Amino acid sequence: MNTKSIAYILGWILKIEAALMTLPAATALVYGEREGFAFLLVMALCALCGFLLSGRKPINPSFYSREGFVTTALGWVLMSVFGCLPFVITGEIPRFIDALFETVSGFTTTGASIMSSVEEMSRCSMIWRCFTHWIGGMGVLVFLLAVVPMVGGSNMHLMKAESPGPSVGKLVPKVRYTARILYYLYIALTVLEFVLLLIFGMTPYEALCTSFGTAGTGGFGIYNSSIGGFSPQIQWIVTIFMIVFGVNFNVYFLLIMGKARDALRCEEMRWYLVIVGAATLLIFANAYDTALTIEHNLRNSAFQVASIITTTGFATTDFNLWPEFSKLILVLLMFVGACAGSTGGGMKVSRMVMAAKSLFRYIGSFLHPRRVRRVKFEDKDVDEDTVRSIGVYFVAVFFIVVVSSLIVALDNKDLISTFTAVAATFNNIGPGLNEVGPTANFASFSDLSKAVLIFDMLAGRLEVFPVLMLLYPPLWREVIDERRRRKRRQQMLSGQ
Amino acid sequence: MNTKSIAYILGWILKIEAALMTLPAATALVYGEREGFAFLLVMALCALCGFLLSGRKPINPSFYSREGFVTTALGWVLMSVFGCLPFVITGEIPRFIDALFETVSGFTTTGASIMSSVEEMSRCSMIWRCFTHWIGGMGVLVFLLAVVPMVGGSNMHLMKAESPGPSVGKLVPKVRYTARILYYLYIALTVLEFVLLLIFGMTPYEALCTSFGTAGTGGFGIYNSSIGGFSPQIQWIVTIFMIVFGVNFNVYFLLIMGKARDALRCEEMRWYLVIVGAATLLIFANAYDTALTIEHNLRNSAFQVASIITTTGFATTDFNLWPEFSKLILVLLMFVGACAGSTGGGMKVSRMVMAAKSLFRYIGSFLHPRRVRRVKFEDKDVDEDTVRSIGVYFVAVFFIVVVSSLIVALDNKDLISTFTAVAATFNNIGPGLNEVGPTANFASFSDLSKAVLIFDMLAGRLEVFPVLMLLYPPLWREVIDERRRRKRRQQMLSGQ
Repeated sequence: MNTKSIAYILGWILKIEAALMTLPAATALVYGEREGFAFLLVMALCALCGFLLSGRKPINPSFYSREGFVTTALGWVLMSVFGCLPFVITGEIPRFIDALFETVSGFTTTGASIMSSVEEMSRCSMIWRCFTHWIGGMGVLVFLLAVVPMVGGSNMHLMKAESPGPSVGKLVPKVRYTARILYYLYIALTVLEFVLLLIFGMTPYEALCTSFGTAGTGGFGIYNSSIGGFSPQIQWIVTIFMIVFGVNFNVYFLLIMGKARDALRCEEMRWYLVIVGAATLLIFANAYDTALTIEHNLRNSAFQVASIITTTGFATTDFNLWPEFSKLILVLLMFVGACAGSTGGGMKVSRMVMAAKSLFRYIGSFLHPRRVRRVKFEDKDVDEDTVRSIGVYFVAVFFIVVVSSLIVALDNKDLISTFTAVAATFNNIGPGLNEVGPTANFASFSDLSKAVLIFDMLAGRLEVFPVLMLLYPPLWREVIDERRRRKRRQQMLSGQ
Repeated sequence: MNTKSIAYILGWILKIEAALMTLPAATALVYGEREGFAFLLVMALCALCGFLLSGRKPINPSFYSREGFVTTALGWVLMSVFGCLPFVITGEIPRFIDALFETVSGFTTTGASIMSSVEEMSRCSMIWRCFTHWIGGMGVLVFLLAVVPMVGGSNMHLMKAESPGPSVGKLVPKVRYTARILYYLYIALTVLEFVLLLIFGMTPYEALCTSFGTAGTGGFGIYNSSIGGFSPQIQWIVTIFMIVFGVNFNVYFLLIMGKARDALRCEEMRWYLVIVGAATLLIFANAYDTALTIEHNLRNSAFQVASIITTTGFATTDFNLWPEFSKLILVLLMFVGACAGSTGGGMKVSRMVMAAKSLFRYIGSFLHPRRVRRVKFEDKDVDEDTVRSIGVYFVAVFFIVVVSSLIVALDNKDLISTFTAVAATFNNIGPGLNEVGPTANFASFSDLSKAVLIFDMLAGRLEVFPVLMLLYPPLWREVIDERRRRKRRQQMLSGQ
């Protein structure tokens, strides 16, 4: 294990976090809020730790999937631990576990909150809270580009986007190039939404926070009523941008490369749009409220479907009051999730489609045992490693959801609250049903449950395996062994 | 597709069913019930159809997994369709869909009932209702022995039991030999329970019905209070026999073969007993009722755990009133299920263990990509096909539970009732929670939901794939094509 490289990258992450905190600090300056000092303090602390960790550039260049996994998981944890300190210092979220929950919820673009009333928060803290979504969303794009492809099997077809680009040479420069374009896209789409929201009547502060939450598919609201208090036009704009940010970024990449036809042929996007459309219509029919206009009904169902499938978690209505069929659709959409290669969470549309296809193939193999069948996705054969990794992924999700639910059930909340709390955090959505519904929050859970849900948010966000790896004993045994061996070698050298 | 062989076997199944109906007919004779005529009528019908189907022994010997799958699935359906007729004719369950639900529930050893009061049923019908469990349990043993091993991948380590037996030659004689021993075991254990229940005060009728329900891990009760009205001793006896019938029959086979040491080393049985013990203790602690004695508390938790994990479905207490943690444990045990190679349903302990192991291996493969790791189970390497088939199985369960829940949710029952109705039928348990709890029944579901739950019972019982295969369009396309080709050949021959 290349611990030095890992420390080096983690140091850089902290330095970047310090830089990013200028936004809340500047906000405090603009609004004259004294909470800004907390941010300055944490910025200094972040920068200090960052410089200590990344003092010397490591010489050992070996960096494999395990290093990538550990770096990613620790990176998210570290960002969150430092990122939650301002809330604790300002006293706006006095307890550390609560502040950590809120910040992990931010960086993992979940949007689950422990705050019963968000409207009393200072503007600088609120900007930081919403900004964590945006940073998290960007972080996910890096993660998808730089770490996931290292693992042959779970390469979720994002790297395909690179082939049209000018291939300069090895992996890293290509990734850098692709990453830069993705960031531009991400920023451009955020700015576009920001401007549209401004035009349709939001204040700059509201528009900024809402755009951050949509882009990162996060979902922290700045008002207790989430997006429910805004005009129909704004609700439609947010609906469309949620859907847009749930699409595989590959599609936009291809569009920019002038390959509109390839972009529109993206199988994952088509399935995704079909699911969004079908779910919207089914809920529209099932939860039709005769007291509202047709447009209002359609808007409510489209908004909630877009919000849940993209795992954003904004709300414009209390879907707890919907009929059971509609509620179940939402619960299922939680697990489906957005497209791979987007900022959305969940199990991803492509995984669902490939899983269903591999099931069909398996049944077919009994009909004609000798005929070789391949799972096709995006017009390509899916290799066996990917098929197997999808099976393992389902198994992992099953066990994580089961164990988490069992621990959270100790709080003796009803099973729907318990299960949807786990589902909504693991899939990075935010609100669940009943006691964690869109009008409620996660404050009433025990500290143990909060810790479990924090774990779930991280596990869900980082495609499960990097976080499970941190809990895998052989990893730590190896790290300790290596350290011991190095020490012994040094002792021998100094003894000579 | 060898349709002639399939028809031949189905014919035999019907003839056997006719023979088995002598038990209810004889019961009617003993108690002088005129409902017996219904059984005589259906016996005649069964025998007639049976002889029509199996008139000529087919010449074509090719019989592969697909034929096995189709035969099994159709066999269960046919048994149920004929088996439910007496209930309709006697008017005790007047509607066909209800009678079919009840009979499928019997043959699949589920035990879910649409009857609000079972105590008014005639004794001959009740004996038949409970007998279907016992027949179903035996049928599962045939299925496991004869059909499942055809499919290399999902051979759930039952055939291992054959190696100690005298191998006469090819597969079939070995299977016959093993099957005979299994039947003797199954019958002997049932008789043992019957005798013990008699000794401790049940009437022969009660003891027979209860033994049938335990042996088949079915769970139809003959009283509305299920087993709750019987003495503590009887409750303990039933608890122990439920656990006994949930053990891999392999273990008993090895015991009989004088290989006690091998029998006790059975990894699946150990895990199964650990889960039963742990779940009992957790529920004992969590659901402790100070109004009852320690023994009563322990008995209640042990009985309910044994009943759910073995997928029997008897009850001695209304676990709907338990705390959420205990209820969730029961829901999870529903999916775990009993051991493979027993009459119990669910996903099976061995599958869970192998799934967990393959997950660990997968994480390990990131740590050391080049080291080859194997999943070990029962001291043997599990081949890759089995590992993959387990992944596909999880995917299949996910999709079946999702689609079924969605349709059943249209009845607008609360999500817990909806979900546990699907879980309790798919895993062949019987009662779920809330509106389908141990004191309730499935009568209030719509016909559509009942049809879905009937499908779920069959799919769960037959390890998913045989039933999915019946819904697989290419299968039917092939059957139709073959038929057309045969006709054309005959026309050509007659034209010559």
